[in-house]
Amino acid sequence: MKQVAIGIDIGGTNTVLGLVDQNGNVLVKDYFSTAKYNDITEYTNKLSGNINKLLERLSQIEVNLHIIGIGIGAPNANYYSGTIEHAPNLSFKGVIPFVSLLKEKFPYIQTITLTNDANATAIGEMMFGGAIGMKNFVMYTLGTGVGSGLVVNGNLVYGQDGFAGECGHTMLIPNGRLCGCGVRGHLEAYCSATGMKRTAFELLAQYNDTKSLLAGYSYNELTAKSIYEAALKGDEIALEVFYSTGKWLGQALADTVHHFSPEAIFLFGGPVAAGDLIINPTIASMETHLLSVFKNKVKVHPSLLKFGDAAIVGASALVWKEQ
Amino acid sequence: MKQVAIGIDIGGTNTVLGLVDQNGNVLVKDYFSTAKYNDITEYTNKLSGNINKLLERLSQIEVNLHIIGIGIGAPNANYYSGTIEHAPNLSFKGVIPFVSLLKEKFPYIQTITLTNDANATAIGEMMFGGAIGMKNFVMYTLGTGVGSGLVVNGNLVYGQDGFAGECGHTMLIPNGRLCGCGVRGHLEAYCSATGMKRTAFELLAQYNDTKSLLAGYSYNELTAKSIYEAALKGDEIALEVFYSTGKWLGQALADTVHHFSPEAIFLFGGPVAAGDLIINPTIASMETHLLSVFKNKVKVHPSLLKFGDAAIVGASALVWKEQ
Repeated sequence: MKQVAIGIDIGGTNTVLGLVDQNGNVLVKDYFSTAKYNDITEYTNKLSGNINKLLERLSQIEVNLHIIGIGIGAPNANYYSGTIEHAPNLSFKGVIPFVSLLKEKFPYIQTITLTNDANATAIGEMMFGGAIGMKNFVMYTLGTGVGSGLVVNGNLVYGQDGFAGECGHTMLIPNGRLCGCGVRGHLEAYCSATGMKRTAFELLAQYNDTKSLLAGYSYNELTAKSIYEAALKGDEIALEVFYSTGKWLGQALADTVHHFSPEAIFLFGGPVAAGDLIINPTIASMETHLLSVFKNKVKVHPSLLKFGDAAIVGASALVWKEQ
Repeated sequence: MKQVAIGIDIGGTNTVLGLVDQNGNVLVKDYFSTAKYNDITEYTNKLSGNINKLLERLSQIEVNLHIIGIGIGAPNANYYSGTIEHAPNLSFKGVIPFVSLLKEKFPYIQTITLTNDANATAIGEMMFGGAIGMKNFVMYTLGTGVGSGLVVNGNLVYGQDGFAGECGHTMLIPNGRLCGCGVRGHLEAYCSATGMKRTAFELLAQYNDTKSLLAGYSYNELTAKSIYEAALKGDEIALEVFYSTGKWLGQALADTVHHFSPEAIFLFGGPVAAGDLIINPTIASMETHLLSVFKNKVKVHPSLLKFGDAAIVGASALVWKEQ
């Protein structure tokens, strides 16, 4: 008998899903557009159809499948209630009882569990990545926004209401850049992929550097990836974007260390692909900001989860963790 | 048989100690100067002598005493190793194996446990104060410095190394006031009793307010208590000190909520005696900084521990919690 968990990651653009074995291998996977569906009933019909297709595909290879559960990562997801609540990047508004809706489709699956995407990534790291055996660590995810998942004494911190771990909305620079949430100065406005673009535009304005490789992009064209490619070619503005992003991120990581004293902090997401370009200034800045009792103790690492599969693996880990 | 725990709080100025029953009542107590002792052997001799005197005093009233353990709150205390490490405000330098030293004096007492003073206060609040029954809450202590203790899933967060909960050293205003730890802009430099004095002097300088009741104090004379008394008389500078302190503290509390999503945050220490003067602007500022998903959910309360006894009760609660 082959045990598998179903991992689903609901993003604003796409939904990705896959069947994952107990070693964190994605056996089959699929994706479809989330944005195309405004109606939650149509969306869950599509999702359950795609799950069933995956199960059919795998059962042609594995004759004796046992589904141990479904794990779901989603923005604004509440672990306790199984709901997705007022997610700004999803077209499903209000409070969606997502776990209940899936249970109607899959009454034979006992465990269906939901949490936010950064929490799922943290559990994935603990089960299958660089945090195996760690009891106290933190995951920061850098993407369109900045998310986080906190593990204390071997368990994810959900808080009183299931929403803990919104470190992207801690204050970095009072009265600074406007964050997507409406408050000024949050970490997310500086250290997300979008934040890096904003930094590039600030630096271009500051230095009037018409020779920069980034000077030819419009605001809507520029991406964190273009900044990375320019940095690899030695572009000074692009290099300074990474330096500044690391400097700011390190300050925020120090605040998290002063709260928790974790063994390690993992960084996940597109900008982290730049490796030392972002990791080195992050560590240097974090160490500068730490009390001496914490210095040179906390490892800062890129996630060891495979980038393309991490969202699926992380979501499935919610189920595997309970085995 | 009367069960009691010994609670000891080691402060830079004084050491306070007492015998505490299972309801958090301090039955007998004592104190002596910490600062007078530079030698740790002399200090532990003095401490154990005073403990024995307390036990004698109580045994004259209670014939059948059973000592369940000793709990100790101290700065820079490490719960895991039982050591006090490089505490800046104590005259005992280096790494002091404090629990071992006390075990030599009291070999018949099984449980001797040590943590930092803010953690001890948090446990005291959970056992005997306003946090009874709470699983996720935070304690901020405002005194000479700013300390904190974090409770997640009913347990204190100690982190990888036993030093978690140093929220006084999270960044409030980058490149702001110099903190005692040597880094600029930490919360402690703004919201401790000392921070309030600094705020008063900044405001006097800013407004040139010669009529303020605070204008007659030298820097070394002014205390948080004098500021409170002036505020009660309607002094505008003093009132603005409380307003600013609350504004800054609320920003920091929001960062803590974005990490943990606690049910409540308790405030403890001298400045908190000002009640609504500090609590109201703190709550208003915290709510302004919170993501909508956290708004109007997190209670901010003065500690319900009796101020004079709280340090002893908190330390004893380390032992009572394990019963």
